[in-house]
Parts: sequence; C-alpha cells; structure tokens
Amino acid sequence: MRVAIGSALAETTPLGVSRADLDRLDERVGVAADRIERGRAAADFGYAALDLPERTDPAPIESAAASLADAETLLTIGIGGSSLGAATLARALGEDGRTLFLDNVDPAHTRGLLDDLDLESTALNVVSRSGTTAETLANFLVVREVMDEAGVDWTTRTVVTTGDSGNLRELAEAHDLPVLAVPDGAPGRFSALSPVGLLAPAFQGADIEAILEGGKRVAGGLGDSLFETPAYAYGATAYALEERGANINAVMPYAEALEAFAEWFAQLWAESLGKDRRGQTPARALGATDQHSQLQLYRAGPRDKLITLVRPRDRPNLPIPETELDGIGYLSGEDLGGLLDAEFDATAASLAESGVPSVEIAIDAIDEHGIGELLVGMEAACIMVGELSDVETFTQPAVEWGKQATRDLLRGEGSLPETPTLVVED
Amino acid sequence: MRVAIGSALAETTPLGVSRADLDRLDERVGVAADRIERGRAAADFGYAALDLPERTDPAPIESAAASLADAETLLTIGIGGSSLGAATLARALGEDGRTLFLDNVDPAHTRGLLDDLDLESTALNVVSRSGTTAETLANFLVVREVMDEAGVDWTTRTVVTTGDSGNLRELAEAHDLPVLAVPDGAPGRFSALSPVGLLAPAFQGADIEAILEGGKRVAGGLGDSLFETPAYAYGATAYALEERGANINAVMPYAEALEAFAEWFAQLWAESLGKDRRGQTPARALGATDQHSQLQLYRAGPRDKLITLVRPRDRPNLPIPETELDGIGYLSGEDLGGLLDAEFDATAASLAESGVPSVEIAIDAIDEHGIGELLVGMEAACIMVGELSDVETFTQPAVEWGKQATRDLLRGEGSLPETPTLVVED
Repeated sequence: MRVAIGSALAETTPLGVSRADLDRLDERVGVAADRIERGRAAADFGYAALDLPERTDPAPIESAAASLADAETLLTIGIGGSSLGAATLARALGEDGRTLFLDNVDPAHTRGLLDDLDLESTALNVVSRSGTTAETLANFLVVREVMDEAGVDWTTRTVVTTGDSGNLRELAEAHDLPVLAVPDGAPGRFSALSPVGLLAPAFQGADIEAILEGGKRVAGGLGDSLFETPAYAYGATAYALEERGANINAVMPYAEALEAFAEWFAQLWAESLGKDRRGQTPARALGATDQHSQLQLYRAGPRDKLITLVRPRDRPNLPIPETELDGIGYLSGEDLGGLLDAEFDATAASLAESGVPSVEIAIDAIDEHGIGELLVGMEAACIMVGELSDVETFTQPAVEWGKQATRDLLRGEGSLPETPTLVVED
Repeated sequence: MRVAIGSALAETTPLGVSRADLDRLDERVGVAADRIERGRAAADFGYAALDLPERTDPAPIESAAASLADAETLLTIGIGGSSLGAATLARALGEDGRTLFLDNVDPAHTRGLLDDLDLESTALNVVSRSGTTAETLANFLVVREVMDEAGVDWTTRTVVTTGDSGNLRELAEAHDLPVLAVPDGAPGRFSALSPVGLLAPAFQGADIEAILEGGKRVAGGLGDSLFETPAYAYGATAYALEERGANINAVMPYAEALEAFAEWFAQLWAESLGKDRRGQTPARALGATDQHSQLQLYRAGPRDKLITLVRPRDRPNLPIPETELDGIGYLSGEDLGGLLDAEFDATAASLAESGVPSVEIAIDAIDEHGIGELLVGMEAACIMVGELSDVETFTQPAVEWGKQATRDLLRGEGSLPETPTLVVED
C-alpha cells in the first residue's frame, strides 16, 4: 500500500498540516502504536482484529464453500458488519452476480429478490453474532418460509455464521447445518478477514488465503511512525485534518469494483469514530462518476473536507477506438483506464488548486492480495485515529436506544417521546 | 408530498430553528418564491426546469421506447445528470434488471458488463447534451466497436439523446437513429422529467405520463409560503439549519427502491448549492441498513448534520412468519414493512432524543406519481435554498478546471501544477 499525503500539507492547502506539526504528531503516533501493539499482544477486544488475518483458519471456510459448490447463487442474510465486509470482498473480486446480499427489511425489495431467485439452486448464509438481529432474523424467517412453501429443503444448503451460543447456533445443531464462527475479538465492522467476510468470496472462487496474506502483510508491518507505516500516515493525516476542520472525509475510489469498499469504509469510520461529538462524516463517492456530481461542492464549497482518493496501479487494458467524431480526437488511441487515471490526476490537481486537502491511497491491483491490504490498512488507520482522538473505537453505544425503541414499539410496550408537530402537506 | 419539520425546531434540538425565526424566514421565502415564478414565466435557464413536467411531450419518448421493445436490455450510456435521473426513475419503478447504466470509464467494469451482455438483444441510449462528454463518448466508442466485432448492427437499436447540434446529432442523422432532445432550459441534474430521464422507465413499461402528472402536481402547486408548500418547507428548513451549522445533509430513504434517488439528490444538492464556500454536503444513506453503519455517528458525533428521512406511506405486505426462536418473539405476526416503519419511527425519535435535527418527507407510494412528486419537490426545494443562499444554482463552474486538465494531459499539452511530495510506502 502507498499513501501520499503531500496534498494534505499546509504548503498545499489552508486546512493542511505543517511538516513541523506532523513531526510533533508522530511522537503521539509512536505512543499510540505502542498501545495498539500491547492491545494486540493481550488480544484485547478490537485490537485483536489486526490479528484476524493471522488467526483466521481458511480451512473451514473453504470447506463450507465447497459444500455449497453446486449452488448457483449464495444469498448472504446479514446487516452492517455482518454484510459489508463480505460484500466488499465479493464485489472487489468479481461481478458475476452469483453472490447476493439481503440486509434491509424492505418488503418490496425482499419480495422482488425472492421472485427473481431460483430457490432450488440458492444457498443461504445467515450471519448474526447474537442470533437475534431483528432485520437478519426477520428476513431469514421470510426466506425460509418461501423455500418451505416451494418445497425446497432449505437445510441442505444453509450455512450459519454466528457466535458460540444462541438461536442460530441451536438452529444449526437442530438441522445439522455447517456453522462458521464469528470471531470474539472484534466488532463486526472489523471482522471482514474472518469467516464473516470470507465465505462469499470463497464461494465465488476467490483465493481467500491470498486475501489473508495481503492483510498479514499490512498487520505484520505496522511500525511506530507515520513516516514509515502507510496506514498510520493515513490515519494521522485524517486526524490532523479533522482537528483543523475537516469534518467530512469523502472517500472516492477510482474503480467500480471498490464501490462497496466505500460503504464498508463508511461504517468503519462512522461507527468507530463517531463519538463524544467527534468523528468525520464519511461521504461515499466514486471516481470518475462523482466528478459529475460532487466535485463542484468539493472544490467550491465549505473548507470542511478531506478527499481520500483510492486507486489501483494496474488496470486491464481496454483501448478506446479511433473516432471520426468532432472534439474528442484526443481520446483516440487512448485506453479507457488511461482516461480514468488522467481524470484521477486532474481531479487531485484541481483539488489542490482550489486549496482542498486530499490523500492518495494506491494498491498494486484490485485482487485478493490488494484488497486484503486495503481493508486491514484502513482498519489500522481507523484504530490510530481512535487512539489519537481518545474515543472508544470498538463500541457503538448510541445505536442501542433505537433498537430498544423498535422492540418496544413492536411489543406494544411504551411509546416514543413526543416531538413538536409542524407538518406541511399539499 | 408531506414534509414534517417539527424535529428540526429549536424546541427539539440545539441546532434547530425557532418558530419566530421561521416566521421571519417565511418573508424571505415569499420574495424568493416570487422570483422563482418570474423566472419560470420568462423561461429563464434553470427555473424553466419546474415546467418540464408540463412541457415534456411523452409521445416521442414512448415512440422511442416502442422502437426498442424487442430488446431485452436497455443500456444507457451517460454520466451525472445524463444518467442519475433515469436511474432513479428506473430503480424506483422496477428491479427487473432490464435497464443498465454505464457511466464510469473503468476498463474492468466496462469489459465485465460487455462480457455479460447479450449484444444481439441490447438497445443503447447514448446521452450527452454536447455530444463530447469524454466518459460517455469513450464508452460509446468501446461498446460500438464490440458490437461491430460481434457482427451486431448497433444502428438498429440505438437512440441518441442530445442537444440541437453536435457529434451525436450528426451521428444520428448519418445512421437514421431516433433522437430525443435534451431540453434547453435546465442543467442535466434538473432534467429527470424530460426525455433525459424518461426513456429508461418507459422501456421498463412504466407510465411516464403519470410521472409527469406527479411532477405537475408539485410544480403547479408551489405557493409563496413555507407553511403551505411542502417543497419550500423542506428547502427553507435545510437552509436555516445550514446557517446554524448543519454542513451535512444525510439523506436516508427507508426504501431500497430509493437508493438511486439518494444519489440523484446528492448531485442535485452538491452541484447546485456547493458554491462560494457554502453548501451542505449530501451524505447518501439508506434506512434501515445504515442504522447499522451511520447512526452511531449521527447521534453521538458532531452537531453538524440535518438528517432527511424519506419514506412511502404504503408498502406491500410481507408477513414475518411465526417463530420458535428465542428472543425474537416480538417479530412474530408482524409485517416486514411494519418492522421497517417501526425502525423509521424509532430512529427519528432517537435522533430527537440526542438533539439531532431531522425532517421527514413522505410520499403516498413509490409509484409513478409519487416519484414524480418527490423529484420535482426536491428540485423546487433546491432552487429555494439557492435563492435564500444567493448562489448561482444552475451552473457548475468549478468542474471545468479538471475537465480541461484531463484533456490537456491526454493531448500531451501542458502539465499539472506540482504539489509537495510526501509518500509512505511499505
């Protein structure tokens, strides 16, 4: 992984960090890096995520995938951290449409998805650590009934990914289903490189050992200086810019295959760092498409953003044919990837020209090794920001209120607090 | 359309607007509404967008769709405003996979898409007002050549959507292709209710006259007070909250079918209002999924956000089966949509409880009429924010620098300005 922070320096942008400030910050990075390593050594909750690439045994995952090999489609039922890591890996490594994800509880969508599925050839992976996640269990109950009604034996091709005990564990025992273990040591958003994230790419035929290798390369190489460790260079820069007013972190990969990565990143960043009235808001973008949507704002809007540009160094070749059409002769003989990279460079320069800080993150290629590096690199970066910000990176207490209120509403217990009414209707 | 702003009031949230301030703001809304109506009467650029539902003739669009009726798939090649409106309408009104969109110039993605397509049964719609949009023309040239090489006559099922002159217009004349007109009076992001946005849903079998009717209902009912006009209630509230520090507008529809709508909204808001160091940054979210991703940040992070919650009043029924599983008995006998709506209500309440302002926008249903109302309502809201903010809503000057730099790079003319280098690599 390569992280370039020159365009986030005070020399480039009024919001930027000076080299002297970076030097001072690096002392704090060293202290934080030491704490992270102690957390890993003690297998403390959260920190242990950095050792998942080392600890995760690919064998049971590959074995579960093999047991589903005669299925045409794998439908993963899970939400948040039980879905986004798997989706990120599956989408980065293939667009073959064989892996589907059902997270939301939208009756129109769930119905439409089930209508389109060939149930006979669909495998299920139900993912919930507790076995009681409302959305996941509700969707599973619906899907199971539809299969029952169609005379399809859902127990023949269902994998359960869950914790050591609870509903789904018992269900698996009752029906003799293969079980994959949600790892103990980390919240869902940090568990992509575990069975939680790896079954879907394994089903697609990806080399999950190479994903783990990529993760290990980053996790094994974490040093104690931002000037030597790309992940910490990114995390420390994001922290420094947040301190200087960059409340927004617009993550803009220049690769369609990384669109789901931007969603995964958005959960990682928001749920880990959005605490104590702190935390950058992740804005999910996609280059070059969002040059035609968000770039006007990024360049000319408030100075409250860091733009994180991500790209692979290698892209497949796809030449743009010669053309007789007026005004686009400059495209003739170029490659589509050359156009995309020129747009990347021009956008980076246009941000610098207007005084907006950006960081460039590059991986060698969007392949197993590269995506493994990228995910673990961003996890390490996020943990570093959490240390520097002094927040509890691995919890998400603010979501509990709404979960309880939802249960109360459905149970007919209690009622929501009143809010003032001001309704305008036509 | 129904807009509820009670949870954005100062009574609910420290960031909120007081009723007295709203009353004062309403005087400015009246002045702005008058200016908007004068702009419409004079058919001034941009303001004229509000009359597209009235002016757009569905006949040529329906006729073009009919000429493609034997195609299995319609591939729309366009980017930004030449794609997002059509995608929003197509996705809201169906998930049948018959309409595809190619916007980005990613060689891996374009190649993968072409490999999966049955070229013989694929129709094309090439959308570019100027006929020189780099991404659109590059992709079109690639697709055309692949069809040529496969012996497929691309001229038999290609529609061109473009301006009065230029490349694509000439191409259409040379090959006798059907042409749909990009309307003069508005930038692309305001042209969903024109041929630019309507061919894809028409191809899918949607009733585009009902889309226009929905738009007309909103555009014809715009009054001069935020207390009477839902679109202006939303726009004025968003403006007032931006003035009070809500630099972020997180748009969170509770409906999978509106996921593309959130992208369309993000362009509308960012490109129209991101000027003069002003403009809320749109954050695209999706309920209930993002409760498991962004809600922690929304509730516990910085007080810099307005959360815009969107939902339909009607949803299809899909009962959650009775279950023997522990801890989720409260789901038994509920409907999946009931769960989603309970989560909506609980999330709204949980935001209010933590002092975060939100607005609720409801449409009757996600159907032709409802989506027509929603899009034109948001356009009117955006124009109102632009008037109140005194920005040039209908231009996007900041994107030109990068476009020129891209062309220069590919032509080998000039070079990008140097930025300081600080690279960390492992």
